[in-house]
Amino acid sequence: MSTGFFPVDKIKYEGPDSTNPFAFRHYNPDEILLGKRMEEHLRFATAYWHSFAWEGGDPFGGRTFDRPWYPQDNMDLAKKKADIAFELFTALGTPYYCFHDADVRPEGANFAENTANLNAIVDIFEQKQAETGVKLLWGTANLFSQARFMSGASTNPDPDVFAFSAATIKTCMDATMRLGGENYVLWGGREGYETLLNTDLGKEDAQMGRMLNMVVEYKHKIGFKGAILVEPKPQEPSKHQYDYDAATVYGFLKRHGLENEVKLNLEQGHAILAGHSFEHEIATATSLGILGSIDMNRNDYQSGWDTDQFPNNVPEVALAYYHILKDGGLKTGGTNFDAKVRRQSIDAADLLHGHIGGMDICARGLKAAAAIIEDGTLDKELADRYAGWEGEEAQKMLKGEYSLEDIQKYVEAADVNPKAKSGKQEYLENVVNRFV
Amino acid sequence: MSTGFFPVDKIKYEGPDSTNPFAFRHYNPDEILLGKRMEEHLRFATAYWHSFAWEGGDPFGGRTFDRPWYPQDNMDLAKKKADIAFELFTALGTPYYCFHDADVRPEGANFAENTANLNAIVDIFEQKQAETGVKLLWGTANLFSQARFMSGASTNPDPDVFAFSAATIKTCMDATMRLGGENYVLWGGREGYETLLNTDLGKEDAQMGRMLNMVVEYKHKIGFKGAILVEPKPQEPSKHQYDYDAATVYGFLKRHGLENEVKLNLEQGHAILAGHSFEHEIATATSLGILGSIDMNRNDYQSGWDTDQFPNNVPEVALAYYHILKDGGLKTGGTNFDAKVRRQSIDAADLLHGHIGGMDICARGLKAAAAIIEDGTLDKELADRYAGWEGEEAQKMLKGEYSLEDIQKYVEAADVNPKAKSGKQEYLENVVNRFV
Amino acid sequence: MSTGFFPVDKIKYEGPDSTNPFAFRHYNPDEILLGKRMEEHLRFATAYWHSFAWEGGDPFGGRTFDRPWYPQDNMDLAKKKADIAFELFTALGTPYYCFHDADVRPEGANFAENTANLNAIVDIFEQKQAETGVKLLWGTANLFSQARFMSGASTNPDPDVFAFSAATIKTCMDATMRLGGENYVLWGGREGYETLLNTDLGKEDAQMGRMLNMVVEYKHKIGFKGAILVEPKPQEPSKHQYDYDAATVYGFLKRHGLENEVKLNLEQGHAILAGHSFEHEIATATSLGILGSIDMNRNDYQSGWDTDQFPNNVPEVALAYYHILKDGGLKTGGTNFDAKVRRQSIDAADLLHGHIGGMDICARGLKAAAAIIEDGTLDKELADRYAGWEGEEAQKMLKGEYSLEDIQKYVEAADVNPKAKSGKQEYLENVVNRFV
Amino acid sequence: MSTGFFPVDKIKYEGPDSTNPFAFRHYNPDEILLGKRMEEHLRFATAYWHSFAWEGGDPFGGRTFDRPWYPQDNMDLAKKKADIAFELFTALGTPYYCFHDADVRPEGANFAENTANLNAIVDIFEQKQAETGVKLLWGTANLFSQARFMSGASTNPDPDVFAFSAATIKTCMDATMRLGGENYVLWGGREGYETLLNTDLGKEDAQMGRMLNMVVEYKHKIGFKGAILVEPKPQEPSKHQYDYDAATVYGFLKRHGLENEVKLNLEQGHAILAGHSFEHEIATATSLGILGSIDMNRNDYQSGWDTDQFPNNVPEVALAYYHILKDGGLKTGGTNFDAKVRRQSIDAADLLHGHIGGMDICARGLKAAAAIIEDGTLDKELADRYAGWEGEEAQKMLKGEYSLEDIQKYVEAADVNPKAKSGKQEYLENVVNRFV
Ligand SMILES: [Co+2]
Ligand SMILES: [Co+2]
Ligand SMILES: [Co+2]
Ligand SMILES: [Co+2]
Ligand SMILES: [Co+2]
Ligand SMILES: [Co+2]
Ligand SMILES: [Co+2]
Ligand SMILES: [Co+2]
Repeated sequence: MSTGFFPVDKIKYEGPDSTNPFAFRHYNPDEILLGKRMEEHLRFATAYWHSFAWEGGDPFGGRTFDRPWYPQDNMDLAKKKADIAFELFTALGTPYYCFHDADVRPEGANFAENTANLNAIVDIFEQKQAETGVKLLWGTANLFSQARFMSGASTNPDPDVFAFSAATIKTCMDATMRLGGENYVLWGGREGYETLLNTDLGKEDAQMGRMLNMVVEYKHKIGFKGAILVEPKPQEPSKHQYDYDAATVYGFLKRHGLENEVKLNLEQGHAILAGHSFEHEIATATSLGILGSIDMNRNDYQSGWDTDQFPNNVPEVALAYYHILKDGGLKTGGTNFDAKVRRQSIDAADLLHGHIGGMDICARGLKAAAAIIEDGTLDKELADRYAGWEGEEAQKMLKGEYSLEDIQKYVEAADVNPKAKSGKQEYLENVVNRFV
Repeated sequence: MSTGFFPVDKIKYEGPDSTNPFAFRHYNPDEILLGKRMEEHLRFATAYWHSFAWEGGDPFGGRTFDRPWYPQDNMDLAKKKADIAFELFTALGTPYYCFHDADVRPEGANFAENTANLNAIVDIFEQKQAETGVKLLWGTANLFSQARFMSGASTNPDPDVFAFSAATIKTCMDATMRLGGENYVLWGGREGYETLLNTDLGKEDAQMGRMLNMVVEYKHKIGFKGAILVEPKPQEPSKHQYDYDAATVYGFLKRHGLENEVKLNLEQGHAILAGHSFEHEIATATSLGILGSIDMNRNDYQSGWDTDQFPNNVPEVALAYYHILKDGGLKTGGTNFDAKVRRQSIDAADLLHGHIGGMDICARGLKAAAAIIEDGTLDKELADRYAGWEGEEAQKMLKGEYSLEDIQKYVEAADVNPKAKSGKQEYLENVVNRFV
Repeated sequence: MSTGFFPVDKIKYEGPDSTNPFAFRHYNPDEILLGKRMEEHLRFATAYWHSFAWEGGDPFGGRTFDRPWYPQDNMDLAKKKADIAFELFTALGTPYYCFHDADVRPEGANFAENTANLNAIVDIFEQKQAETGVKLLWGTANLFSQARFMSGASTNPDPDVFAFSAATIKTCMDATMRLGGENYVLWGGREGYETLLNTDLGKEDAQMGRMLNMVVEYKHKIGFKGAILVEPKPQEPSKHQYDYDAATVYGFLKRHGLENEVKLNLEQGHAILAGHSFEHEIATATSLGILGSIDMNRNDYQSGWDTDQFPNNVPEVALAYYHILKDGGLKTGGTNFDAKVRRQSIDAADLLHGHIGGMDICARGLKAAAAIIEDGTLDKELADRYAGWEGEEAQKMLKGEYSLEDIQKYVEAADVNPKAKSGKQEYLENVVNRFV
Repeated sequence: MSTGFFPVDKIKYEGPDSTNPFAFRHYNPDEILLGKRMEEHLRFATAYWHSFAWEGGDPFGGRTFDRPWYPQDNMDLAKKKADIAFELFTALGTPYYCFHDADVRPEGANFAENTANLNAIVDIFEQKQAETGVKLLWGTANLFSQARFMSGASTNPDPDVFAFSAATIKTCMDATMRLGGENYVLWGGREGYETLLNTDLGKEDAQMGRMLNMVVEYKHKIGFKGAILVEPKPQEPSKHQYDYDAATVYGFLKRHGLENEVKLNLEQGHAILAGHSFEHEIATATSLGILGSIDMNRNDYQSGWDTDQFPNNVPEVALAYYHILKDGGLKTGGTNFDAKVRRQSIDAADLLHGHIGGMDICARGLKAAAAIIEDGTLDKELADRYAGWEGEEAQKMLKGEYSLEDIQKYVEAADVNPKAKSGKQEYLENVVNRFV
């Protein structure tokens, strides 16, 4: 029986011509693209935190939302929150959800209370998952909001905070395992620094590397089959965060022997904060073999902080899925909306509008990406551009059979004097625009 | 015999009260800091390109300088340029200089002409070094200006460009070796992309990795004792450059097995373009053991492109040297001014003003950094902050003797509930400001 | 008779399903939108400079293009350039073009030569316009490329540069008048500063104000019916440019009594450099009544300089035209492509691809904007949101009938305690996405 | 009798060699510079909000501070807060303080309660000012934190919010008047928009203009002698704020006939967010005659949000005071620290460290600026650079006696062909560095 919080119980696909604001116009779960159902391609997840734990505050103002599950400091209201959260998941038909421990349970006075509170909620989630068929895409620990984490979790100068963090991660991995979660995510909002004057980069790197190794060891110990994912972000809340971007995290993983054990959860907004496009981050990760999952929420290009808005630009989203499809699609990962409605969007309906719009944009982007791949022009142009590297001499250079001296001789003997060839950027952009 | 191009033949140290614009007020080569002469700490180098090859153009306007060595398309004027360049090095007393092949020789019609032109100039440099005592800090190849490199050098889709680049690098390494250069630098202005639509990141990474491995192999083959350095930059001229920042290059080196063979040449301006402070890039490199040398030229914080200005802010420069001194100082590296006078600074005197100001700023920064180290407050505060990690339990956590489960037991048993401690950022900034 | 430079003589509309890269899929000049032909809505112009004067150089590399009208230092090749330029205009069917004096004529040794060269080309343009039906959207003077302008044109510390600039503007206004130009544009690339240390803002403001007043006076004197337009840009090439953005130029115009005489030519790329969206700049200008014309070329969001790329994102372009249509559409202004193909796009075909893609994107954006307006949902939501201001008390507050004291009394008497209402951002974005 | 909250009751000047962290090393109130006491030049103010109302939260975490005046929801603790606040002002010896209504009083249930609470605190402040000699630099109304303001205060689509805001401003102006405040400030954190889709720029401009006119009318009505100041900020919390920067506010004032009634309160951090240097904003304001006061708190150059840090860079601060001194110094304005200690700086001592460091940096900056002015080199160079404009012909051009045609004749007759002159930027920077 519904709580009646949302104006509509179920969002349905009505096709592109629908003007019903509570219907999908493009997200049609059963539509087949490249031989697979759209739902299985996109693997949508709704995030618990932004829609249920965030109260509308920002650095210059307090709560704007008024919800029946406030205040969030007791278990009774935490249960009510869970009821309404699963109503949202069900209404949207997102097959997955994601959560931090701190989103779903009240803050306890100590570790034991936190754990007990979490486990009580996990009992409820277990039952709700069974009732609704909604699954857990990933769980994660919030190691950044409570004051104890202000100087870092695993990278804290105080080893007790490292211990508290490690123990908390374990409880969240246990919860994720119990709930059949398909991944476990680590985002290190406080794993970084405010000032180098009080920071020892080497020590903090060693601490963070040890923590991530323990996570991987524990995963194997308990037989967790999901992926361990790190979510890069360059800054905010910290001035500098160690998991800056995909390339930086790759170096970290390699340094700690984890490049085959850990993958990335990439967020569009974080890509932008790091000075990259989303497709850059995805293509970087796929070229390194470490793409895991995505957070499909954008930043505003004119804001220097993480606005976590629902996606609204099909051409951008299409390029993201294009690189994902070229990598074989999302595996254990999904399309998570780490997105919040604006602080002024205070109505329950706004939570629906945000997600409906985001899901439709993703559906359009995916369809466009699939069409680009089926068309094949882009792939063919790319192959042609590098075709010279298939040549015998080229392969020798690439495979290490030639030294600089050998190559100098070749250049001199053949008077190699290469002429530039068009990069065709405008033509390729026009090809993309046939599909988006 | 001087050409008379510069208004002054020799810049001397006159002390802080001097108002002579053609004197050093702080750079006193023989002053001892931390037991070493200032000159040996700073290891200044003047860059050939900005002062002698650049003609004052920018994207919206052409040449503003009028120099006796223009036009730069023939060997006679290239020799005149060399004469005046060494007059600048001598006037400033920078013990080192740096150059690209394309700075010092006219562009030939093909590889053979380029090589011949370069070698003819190297003959002259050899003689001038002997006469003046000026030494070569590093040589490098310009693989970005000529049209053939427009789509990359080692990362070009055309293997002939790779070959041309490899052969050119060899000639520049040979020149550097002959001239006793103490390092060899690679900056990949075109090693990146304009659009992912025409770019295969994996292929280009393999090409770039192979090239750098060949460079290292050749270094060992010829017995070059200097360091091989990569200079990171996030973008410009390319939309994205692969050597984005220190952390990214570290990952690249590690991926290609080069992390013990190659170090970094870090530039303040590039740090800023990448969203970092200069001290961040230096501290990152030192924590990873890959700091090689620095380009001490700033960007304007309000400009989104590389302005390559002479440093003018002592507090910023002091923090850079602070991290360098903590790393044991510059070894084969130096303080290179990859800096150009503004396009409106068209007089010969301006070339002196730029360098004099930069050298004095660096001298002040170094003195401040040395004083901070001698004072010891910062180091002590840092050690105190992490002191808890020396404890037995903490070391066990760090060394891998504890698993997540072990730590959970410890947290529960001891009811670990850490209290936050002040990060003291303002106090530490005040300490620094006692010295800058 | 065609020179044969372009692979195709005429680009035609073939409809959305065409895969012909040399056809329009959306730009259909005769299609009627909101009662007006698409061609008359869009009023496309091709820019002379980027396609014909720019040679592919950037700050780190030289010319990449190879054109039959190079070198650009003599009248014969300038004529050949004009032939091919008009072939491009004709092939594309852009009803307009735009030019700077320096794009079309070789640089003379002094003002008299410049003027003679320009006038000779204007003779040719006059004839070509008659032959082809192509019209001049606007003319302008290049007061930024030649070295004499390095410290400003009207804002130069040297009054002789002011004089040279004023005289040059006059010749360009005369040329624009003769050619039936529909606007005259001023872009002040050097009207700004590199450092405040050598700059007197008050003096330079007075100079710039006087120059613009002279332009307006001369317009009236010669009976020029077109609009005088200023093109804002925040920086580049200057560190700071006085015509920073729409709001800044408004203040300048108001200060010099020109707010009813001068309008704006807004460029998307410049909006982004100034920290704004394009629609922000357009909406600001329309709300102030000073929108004149647009340069429809984008920047790359990850590059900190002006990339002047062809537009390729329909949702962005649609919002621009939405605000233009709400302002009554472009009047004397047009949609100018101040856009250049990438430095690697070296083929003649690339010039076609860039413009074709841009024109199609604009056509799609315009169609979407028209559909949003016809649908009416957005307009209605906006009107509803502010409807309270139609109330009697509200109007009294707004019209100045109430003082702070009166309002305090009202608030106290009525215990005014407003409740927040949803801003509905996600819903409104979803509405837009029905059309883009 | 002190509450004992702070570790030290009074910060004294001990001179540059002091290593006492609770002493001034440079701020010596009685030192004479350019004929005036340092205290009278700087006119320091401590801000109530950051040190007393902010609890250490950020977008990713909650309260980190633990203060004896928490929770801030009742009058008793508000009084305790006032006691400790005046202990800080007294300890520091800042002659002034600043506050918003919401900083000092608990939030009431409606306007009447807010007013009563505020007035009760004003009674206390009046007494404390008399006891301590501390004065009010400015008062202001917080029209951005409470949920009712989420869509704007004067620019709200709901006229009731406009009314509530107007009434609140009146109470704050009354409080400021009663307390002898020397200025009244308006900062419009919510006067802007999140999305143009729900925003009518013209309507909101009219509302904001009317509000500011009412403020000015009321000032005159009550005989308030202080200045009315607007504080520009480009964004945050709003995506776009109407008071974007100095130039934008100038245009707004001019449009609403207020350019002689209202001045600016400029903040370094906001300058940086707007893409400017602080000295740019100050020089812009002084050239327009609208500089009022400054908020001397910096942003971090690598963070895209307002970090409100204490200043720590003497060269930057010196340039700010240089432009202020050239404008005749601060009049009714002052140097306000709109600065907060970092979220990790949780000790009472940190509040002292932040202010002490900031005051010393300002003292050093001011001394440097005064020395630059006494030296005179910069001023002379500037005058020389524009000296040509004193010529007869130049004055005629500037004063409007010449038209474009007249000038063309002059250019042709004299064959005016100006040669570029060096802008001497590096030399001028070196001159500055003699003093900072
Ligand atoms: Co985010
Ligand atoms: Co995320
Ligand atoms: Co650089
Ligand atoms: Co460099
Ligand atoms: Co542009
Ligand atoms: Co333009
Ligand atoms: Co601020
Ligand atoms: Co402020």
